[in-house]
Amino acid sequence: MHSRFPIAISRLIDAFASLPGIGEKTATRLVFHLIRSPQQASVELGEAAAELRRELKLCEKCRNVCDSAVCGVCNDSARNTSQILIVEEALDVLAFEKANGYKGVYHVLHGVLNPLEGIGPESLTIAHLIERVKGGGVEEIILAMNPSVEGEATAMYLTKQLQPFNIKTTRLARGLPTGSELSYADEVTLSAALNGRREY
Amino acid sequence: MHSRFPIAISRLIDAFASLPGIGEKTATRLVFHLIRSPQQASVELGEAAAELRRELKLCEKCRNVCDSAVCGVCNDSARNTSQILIVEEALDVLAFEKANGYKGVYHVLHGVLNPLEGIGPESLTIAHLIERVKGGGVEEIILAMNPSVEGEATAMYLTKQLQPFNIKTTRLARGLPTGSELSYADEVTLSAALNGRREY
Repeated sequence: MHSRFPIAISRLIDAFASLPGIGEKTATRLVFHLIRSPQQASVELGEAAAELRRELKLCEKCRNVCDSAVCGVCNDSARNTSQILIVEEALDVLAFEKANGYKGVYHVLHGVLNPLEGIGPESLTIAHLIERVKGGGVEEIILAMNPSVEGEATAMYLTKQLQPFNIKTTRLARGLPTGSELSYADEVTLSAALNGRREY
Repeated sequence: MHSRFPIAISRLIDAFASLPGIGEKTATRLVFHLIRSPQQASVELGEAAAELRRELKLCEKCRNVCDSAVCGVCNDSARNTSQILIVEEALDVLAFEKANGYKGVYHVLHGVLNPLEGIGPESLTIAHLIERVKGGGVEEIILAMNPSVEGEATAMYLTKQLQPFNIKTTRLARGLPTGSELSYADEVTLSAALNGRREY
């Protein structure tokens, strides 16, 4: 349908439509919004997108996104560096920081293993993590991948890779989320909650 | 909240969030999707956005978006150039072309008058339209602004501007949209449908 549009427009529609949650209709609306807006709006968006990956720095230690060589968490001497919590992406670090209960450090994988999409261990920051562990001083690795098939597979792969180092490896608890209702919980969650029951 | 992000990220979040229908949360999700994607995805989006306005040509005659100096409609010798249908934006041209019933030509205003947002006649292609009309050969001007307050105001302004040329000026019919239900129609639409009733 949008082959009716000039190339400058259809190109940007395609770029928008390749983003998650944005279909061709929304993409078209966004592009025409930019056509109506001051030229500066589309130029600013364009430059910000083009420079995103060029400007973005990853922390030398944990590979979290940051502005300097080492991120705020790794730079904080109050954090316990013997505990590494492994997450899929930088947004997850933010989630834990907001929850405000974790005092160790992080490691950001930037994805999960997904053979179907061609994402193998070399696409993630796993080699970097192993180097970090080899550096010594790590006592506990907390695997905090998302509770998805790919997350599980990645956690299992990491467990295997970390076995030779004899480090305590834990994973996040499974169970009922706070504020949920028992009758709405899925079976897997309910079984996990039952199996993981703890004494009062 | 997103001041916690590096500047490269928060800049793109802001750019996305300034688009209609995209809040800060969605914008953040989009940016982190681009961080996970191959670098080429963000570069392509960036270049397409930055070049949108630079590459985009407007038809010399009707100001519709196009690839060449004159758009497909204005270039089509079968179209009736004595009839000009005035629309707010290029997407509206597409809507009429799809409906496939109009054989005249168009004029794209690229917006509507909106004093509160600082959009006056000089921001639109009104001067260009007047020049076009002065060129002669125009017999009917169809005002096809959206049925909104700004659309009405723009139509009224245009009617006044076009008065000296003594050209037949019409506007689209108001009434019940096809497939709608009477009981759900708003009062203004219902009154319009009643006042505009036609003989069988």
